[in-house]
Amino acid sequence: MRELTVELGERSYPIYIGQGILTNITALFDRAKLSRKSPLLIVTDESVAALHLERVLTLLREGGFAATACVVPAGETSKSLAQLEGIVTAALQAGLDRSSAIVALGGGVVGDLAGFAAASFMRGIRFVQIPTTILAHDSSVGGKVAVNHPMAKNIIGAFHQPELVLFDIDLLMTLPLRDVKAGLSEVIKHGLIWDAAFTQWCDENADKLLALDPEALSYALYIGCQVKAIVVSQDERENDLRAILNLGHTIGHALEAVAGYGELLHGEAISIGMVGAAKLAQQFGYSEDIHTVTKGLFVKFGLPVSIPPHLDTDMIMSAMMHDKKFKEGTMVYIIPTEIGKVEIRKDVTTEQVRQIVDLLKGEK
Amino acid sequence: MRELTVELGERSYPIYIGQGILTNITALFDRAKLSRKSPLLIVTDESVAALHLERVLTLLREGGFAATACVVPAGETSKSLAQLEGIVTAALQAGLDRSSAIVALGGGVVGDLAGFAAASFMRGIRFVQIPTTILAHDSSVGGKVAVNHPMAKNIIGAFHQPELVLFDIDLLMTLPLRDVKAGLSEVIKHGLIWDAAFTQWCDENADKLLALDPEALSYALYIGCQVKAIVVSQDERENDLRAILNLGHTIGHALEAVAGYGELLHGEAISIGMVGAAKLAQQFGYSEDIHTVTKGLFVKFGLPVSIPPHLDTDMIMSAMMHDKKFKEGTMVYIIPTEIGKVEIRKDVTTEQVRQIVDLLKGEK
Ligand SMILES: NC(=O)c1ccc[n+]([C@@H]2O[C@H](COP(=O)([O-])OP(=O)(O)OC[C@H]3O[C@@H](n4cnc5c(N)ncnc54)[C@H](O)[C@@H]3O)[C@@H](O)[C@H]2O)c1
Ligand SMILES: NC(=O)c1ccc[n+]([C@@H]2O[C@H](COP(=O)([O-])OP(=O)(O)OC[C@H]3O[C@@H](n4cnc5c(N)ncnc54)[C@H](O)[C@@H]3O)[C@@H](O)[C@H]2O)c1
Ligand SMILES: [Zn+2]
Ligand SMILES: [Zn+2]
Repeated sequence: MRELTVELGERSYPIYIGQGILTNITALFDRAKLSRKSPLLIVTDESVAALHLERVLTLLREGGFAATACVVPAGETSKSLAQLEGIVTAALQAGLDRSSAIVALGGGVVGDLAGFAAASFMRGIRFVQIPTTILAHDSSVGGKVAVNHPMAKNIIGAFHQPELVLFDIDLLMTLPLRDVKAGLSEVIKHGLIWDAAFTQWCDENADKLLALDPEALSYALYIGCQVKAIVVSQDERENDLRAILNLGHTIGHALEAVAGYGELLHGEAISIGMVGAAKLAQQFGYSEDIHTVTKGLFVKFGLPVSIPPHLDTDMIMSAMMHDKKFKEGTMVYIIPTEIGKVEIRKDVTTEQVRQIVDLLKGEK
Repeated sequence: MRELTVELGERSYPIYIGQGILTNITALFDRAKLSRKSPLLIVTDESVAALHLERVLTLLREGGFAATACVVPAGETSKSLAQLEGIVTAALQAGLDRSSAIVALGGGVVGDLAGFAAASFMRGIRFVQIPTTILAHDSSVGGKVAVNHPMAKNIIGAFHQPELVLFDIDLLMTLPLRDVKAGLSEVIKHGLIWDAAFTQWCDENADKLLALDPEALSYALYIGCQVKAIVVSQDERENDLRAILNLGHTIGHALEAVAGYGELLHGEAISIGMVGAAKLAQQFGYSEDIHTVTKGLFVKFGLPVSIPPHLDTDMIMSAMMHDKKFKEGTMVYIIPTEIGKVEIRKDVTTEQVRQIVDLLKGEK
């Protein structure tokens, strides 16, 4: 079992990564001082519930915890205020109190939704992440939780750190290949923004990762979580540094919104966005190798690198305007300066981004 | 103009109280470093909008702020996730960004709703309280914000402190008498929990307060806010001390829920609840004078002191079970030990509370 800590003072918490570690769930819950007197609520989605819920419930109950489950439909559309209300109903029916915890068992959708429920139920109760997707190595670390509004993604949310993250590689074995690829997109992002050697390693181990080789996967998730943890420790509330995690996300979020939530997976959308950022880097005078390497990597992992031509440029641009990364009219943009390094630019114009969007439509 | 500070380290903020001080709104906004570059969103309700919105918008616009308004229906039912979604729609349409602020212009309903919107929009933007009810001297201070769930009041919320509270006595002159009385109920509560001399003063100045005498009102709101500010400064997140502000609220919240939100005003419900707490004090061996004085005071202010007989005891008890003040099965209850002092008891049984509920039905 690999272990690392997200250093956030009194809000610090451990991340456990390993194969089969779900068996230790109650010991790890005890280490985090979760209460056996107060009921737990497990939030999961229909697909994950069918595969893994019984096991988790059984392990917890055998360990003396009172646990019930609230199951939401699978998919991005569950990140809604309506589902939040449903979770609160379940929490009240299960008799959760201030010492209770909400446990997210699922991917980023379940994590973000259950996390916002934990942040706001009784103005904040404890929260545990049991990620079941590769992408969730990213979403489960750092405390950003949110639901969507029909007009904008992740616009209603909070910062709410979990008590622990329990990442059992075995749970990932049931993942559809499309979600494997989409999840690896964020893993690669963590290399691109922080660690050139790891980017290289990803390139060399693409086949193993795509085949869900447990050791390769375990290592990749460990490094991915570590990069995220370091960045978040230095800037929990995204005042500056944390913005680098948004590489590829300005265009990515807009693409997700315009395609209709769920059409384009998050990891797919940001894959296109990262290729766009690399193109922009070229226009700002940085080496065109960045674009070549970035694009090559995503192609190798079977991820999309161009914008589906039916998505309208004006709609993409207008979706971006509602994005939270606009501060007082100026546009903040993350641009790679070499592989493993990025900078936060505040001088990018809408016009430049529109050109990139048009270029990305032609990308082959 | 009276001024006081809620001391919360880097989250400290000023409360301004006085007659006609709305005229200085832009100067006070400047002092709080609110941005003229980012749009403001004023949240208010239909009744307050008809009376005061134009003036506030005009003052802000003349002062160079970009301000638009979002108007919700008046009444407790607006503290809902549906209205939250509406505010977020308005915020997106008005182009709010991370440097924007949401301004609550109204009573506790608008303050709690707009405050939760500010806490969760973009995971938290700035927030200003312009209270227009007497009760809001309480709700506008301390940063508790929330919406209701059909099964429980204030169950979905956050802690989100405002940048400033601007309390113009002139805005209160349009208040219906019933809301005047209900608001004074929380003013009296602040005396009962903290300040015997102020309780005495309230008793002696009941006529002036009910007649909205500006100087008496200004003083009462100043002391009320001060008590609240002191308590909140010592325990922002209600780990212990802050619970004393809940005097009368265990029964009060249950009555509100069972009567149907809006039937019994918050101030009316807690007036009954405080009489109940005084009765409970008697059963714990404290002087029966507490009950006599408490009840006398609320009668003098024209507030209810008994539970409407059509409200079912079982339903009241079951509503209480969902209340957030239950921790790991134990019941936490605030009980007066003398006028101006309370204690937090953790040994109160459901049976004892049920007896009080029954007694309160007979109270004349
Ligand atoms: N909070 C953050 O910091 C952060 C960071 C990145 C992404 N996100 C969010 O994460 C979400 C995307 O996460 P995701 O890709 O995990 O999506 P997801 O949670 O929707 O999971 C993808 C699909 O895989 C299924 N699934 C999950 N685990 C499975 C398993 N073990 N076996 C089989 N199927 C499984 C799910 O039912 C779903 O259909 C987006 O909403 C995004 O905004 C949040
Ligand atoms: N956050 C907290 O710490 C806290 C504390 C106490 C109460 N509260 C909440 O406050 C709410 C009750 O507050 P409230 O009594 O102010 O209710 P409210 O906001 O509903 O106002 C009462 C009524 O008076 C009207 N009104 C407001 N200002 C007016 C004015 N100047 N002139 C004429 N009419 C006016 C409103 O339209 C409404 O109909 C409850 O929801 C309660 O839970 C919160
Ligand atoms: Zn992402
Ligand atoms: Zn109250």
